[in-house]
Amino acid sequence: MALIVQKFGGTSVADIDRIRNVANRVAQTSDQGNSVVVILSAMAGVTDKLISLANQASENPDKREMDVLLATGEQTTSALLAMMLKQMGYKAQSMLGHQAQVMTDSDYGNARIIDIGASRVRKLIEKDTIVVVAGFQGEDTKGNITTLGRGGSDTSAVAIAAALKADTCEIYTDVNGIYTADPNICPKARKLKMISYDEMLNMASLGAKVLQIRSVGFAKKYNIPVHVRSSFNEEEGTMVVSEDSAMEQLVVSGVTLDKDQARITLTKVPDQPGIAAKVFSPIAENNILVDMIIQNTNIAGHTDITFTVPKADYKRTMKLTEQIVKQTGAQEALGDINIAKVSVIGVGMKNHSGVASVMFNTLARDNINILMITTSEIRISCTVEEKYAELAVRVLHTAFGLDTEE
Amino acid sequence: MALIVQKFGGTSVADIDRIRNVANRVAQTSDQGNSVVVILSAMAGVTDKLISLANQASENPDKREMDVLLATGEQTTSALLAMMLKQMGYKAQSMLGHQAQVMTDSDYGNARIIDIGASRVRKLIEKDTIVVVAGFQGEDTKGNITTLGRGGSDTSAVAIAAALKADTCEIYTDVNGIYTADPNICPKARKLKMISYDEMLNMASLGAKVLQIRSVGFAKKYNIPVHVRSSFNEEEGTMVVSEDSAMEQLVVSGVTLDKDQARITLTKVPDQPGIAAKVFSPIAENNILVDMIIQNTNIAGHTDITFTVPKADYKRTMKLTEQIVKQTGAQEALGDINIAKVSVIGVGMKNHSGVASVMFNTLARDNINILMITTSEIRISCTVEEKYAELAVRVLHTAFGLDTEE
Repeated sequence: MALIVQKFGGTSVADIDRIRNVANRVAQTSDQGNSVVVILSAMAGVTDKLISLANQASENPDKREMDVLLATGEQTTSALLAMMLKQMGYKAQSMLGHQAQVMTDSDYGNARIIDIGASRVRKLIEKDTIVVVAGFQGEDTKGNITTLGRGGSDTSAVAIAAALKADTCEIYTDVNGIYTADPNICPKARKLKMISYDEMLNMASLGAKVLQIRSVGFAKKYNIPVHVRSSFNEEEGTMVVSEDSAMEQLVVSGVTLDKDQARITLTKVPDQPGIAAKVFSPIAENNILVDMIIQNTNIAGHTDITFTVPKADYKRTMKLTEQIVKQTGAQEALGDINIAKVSVIGVGMKNHSGVASVMFNTLARDNINILMITTSEIRISCTVEEKYAELAVRVLHTAFGLDTEE
Repeated sequence: MALIVQKFGGTSVADIDRIRNVANRVAQTSDQGNSVVVILSAMAGVTDKLISLANQASENPDKREMDVLLATGEQTTSALLAMMLKQMGYKAQSMLGHQAQVMTDSDYGNARIIDIGASRVRKLIEKDTIVVVAGFQGEDTKGNITTLGRGGSDTSAVAIAAALKADTCEIYTDVNGIYTADPNICPKARKLKMISYDEMLNMASLGAKVLQIRSVGFAKKYNIPVHVRSSFNEEEGTMVVSEDSAMEQLVVSGVTLDKDQARITLTKVPDQPGIAAKVFSPIAENNILVDMIIQNTNIAGHTDITFTVPKADYKRTMKLTEQIVKQTGAQEALGDINIAKVSVIGVGMKNHSGVASVMFNTLARDNINILMITTSEIRISCTVEEKYAELAVRVLHTAFGLDTEE
C-alpha cells in the first residue's frame, strides 16, 4: 500500500462534472489499496474573477486581504470534492491551509513554505480517510492567511508529499506530460518518459508552464518523484526524478523558447569596480526582473553591458537606463524588443562535449544570427531575432535527435 | 469615544457599489472618533448559489463540508471591505471566524457559540484598526469550520459585541427598523423607537424576519443595546433594549402574523398519564417542529388535543397522526391547512388587564371566528381562518392604538 499525493489544477476542477472525474480517479486510486491525499486548485477562471473583484474594490488592493479573498477559490473546490467522495461512500475530509499546518512566511501573494506540520493530515490517513487539502494557501506564524503565488498548488502538493514522506506526487494537468519542445511550435515534439529535477528546473524557468518552478526545487530537495500527467486520460505522463533515476540518456532533453524578453545594451561603460552595481541597483529597486546579463571583456577601459527584461517592463527600464547612462558616463543605451531566447537543456551535456558547437552550427545553417549567448552547466541559451524563434526551435529539435520517429 | 459593532446583511453588501456604501458608513463612524468592528454577511444570493453547487456535487451534502463551502461567502465580502477601507486611508484588517476566536459546538450548519476569545480583535482595536469580521462562521474545539445557520451573522455581531463589551451593536438591514406590524399588510404600521428584548424575541419567532432570534437571546443575556436600522439611509432605526430602558409605554408593541401553520386535532383521546408523550414523540422523531399545543379539559375520560405544524410538514404529520389514532384509541384526526396565527405582543400586558378581552371583542366585531387561543406573559395568539388573516392584523393594530397619526 502506497501513500500517493494527487494534485489537480484549475482546468481539472473547472466545473461540477470535471470535479466528478477527479472524484472517480481519486476513488480508483483508493480502491487499489493506496492512501490518497488530494491537493486542489480553484476552478479555472475563479482566481481571475476574484482579482477583478478586488480591482473594482481598490486601485491597489491590500496584499493581506487579497490572499484572504483568493483563498476562497481552493476552499470551494476542496469542500465540493470531499462532499462527492463522501456521497460515493468514502471517508473523506477537506482541510484548509491552516488546518493542514502549511506554515509560510508573511510575503502575501508569494509566500514561501517554511514548514508543514501535517500531523492532522497524518492522523486522518491512519483512519483510512481521503484528505482533500486546499492548495495554494498557508498560514503565517501570526495566523494570517497567505497564498503561494500563481501555480502555488504544485508547491503545496510537493511540500505535503515531502512532509508525509509520500511514495509519489502526481500532478494532474491539461497536458499529457513534459515535451521535448512546445508541440504548437514543433509538431515533432515528443513526450519525455523521465526528466531530472535539474532539467525540469531549467525547463520551467524558460517557459514550459507545466510545473511551478518552486515545486521542482522542493521535489529535488526531498527527492520526491513527481509524475506529471493528464487528468483527461489514463496515459502515463512524465516522471520528474533525481538525475540517477532518469534513465533516458539523452544529451539534450528539450528545446525551450521564451519570447517575453527585451534586450538593452549600455555601450562604452567605464570599466571600474562597482559599475555593475551602479547599473543594476536602480533596476532592482523598481522590481524589474533582469534575466540574462552579459558583460563583454574590457577593451581600452570600457565595456559593453547587455541585459534582458520582460517585454512589459521594457519602456520603464529604458527610461531608467537613460539616467544610468548619465550617471555612469556610458556612451548610450540601445534597446531591442524583437528578440527571443532559445535554449537547449540536458544533464547529458555534462558528459558530452560539442553541444554548443552543434547548436551554433545548426542555427548558422539557416542563417539565424545569434545576438547573445549564455550557458550554465546543463543549458545553453541563445538570443535570436524574434522572427526566427520558432524556426530555431524546430531545427535544434531535429539536430539533437529529439523528433518523433513517425 | 465609543466602541461600536456594525453588522451589514447580504443586501447591504450585494455588489461592489453597495460594499462601497458600507465602507463610507464605517469610515464616517470611525471619523466621529469611535472604534469600529464590522461584521459582514455574504453577498445576497451567494449562499444560495453555493448550496446549489453542493446539491449538484452530492444528493445529500456532508454537513462539515457544507460549512467549509458556505464560509467562503463571508470571507469574500470581508476581504473586499478591508481592501476598500485601506484604499481610503484607514487601518483595517479582515478576520475569519477562527481568527476572531469564535468558538462554537460542532453542530455543523447550526452551530452555537460557546465562547469568543476576541483577544486578537481587541489588540487590533487598541491599534486604531477597523476590524472586519466574517460573520456566520466559527470554529469548533477540534479546529473544524462551523456555521451558525441562516441569519447567523446577527448572532456573530451580538456575540462579538458582548465579548468586546461594545457600547452598541448596530444591525444594518434593508428595512428601517422594527414596525408595529408588517407594512405590506397594515399600511398604518409605524416604526418603533424602542422595543424590549422579550418583545423582540416574540416578534422574531412569529415572523418579523429582521433579527435572528438567537442573536436577541444573546443581546438580552449580555445586555447589549441593538440598533436595527437601514443601510440605505441615515434614519434612526429601532433600539432593542432591556425592559427598563424601553421608554415607550405601549401596552401592545406589535401585531404579527404567521400564515405558515396547519392545524391537526385528535378527538376523544383517552385521558391517561403519558398520552401527550405518545402523541408527540413520533412527530418529534421525524423532526417536525410543533408550534402551538392545546389540550382541552378532560370530559368523561376523554380529551381533544390540537396542535399546529408548518404547512410543508402537514401531509407527513397527518399520516403519522393517523397511526397515532390507532395506537392511542383516539376517535379520529382532523386537519385544516387554511389557518393563520395572529398575535399581539407587549411587555405592557404584564401591568394592564383587559388586553385579551380587547383582542377577542375586536375580532368578533368583524365576524372573525377564533379557532385556537394561546397566551404567554407578553403575548396573546389567536388562530383564525386564513382568509381573515390580514383583516385581523389591521383591526387589532387600530384597536391597540398603534396606527400612525397621519
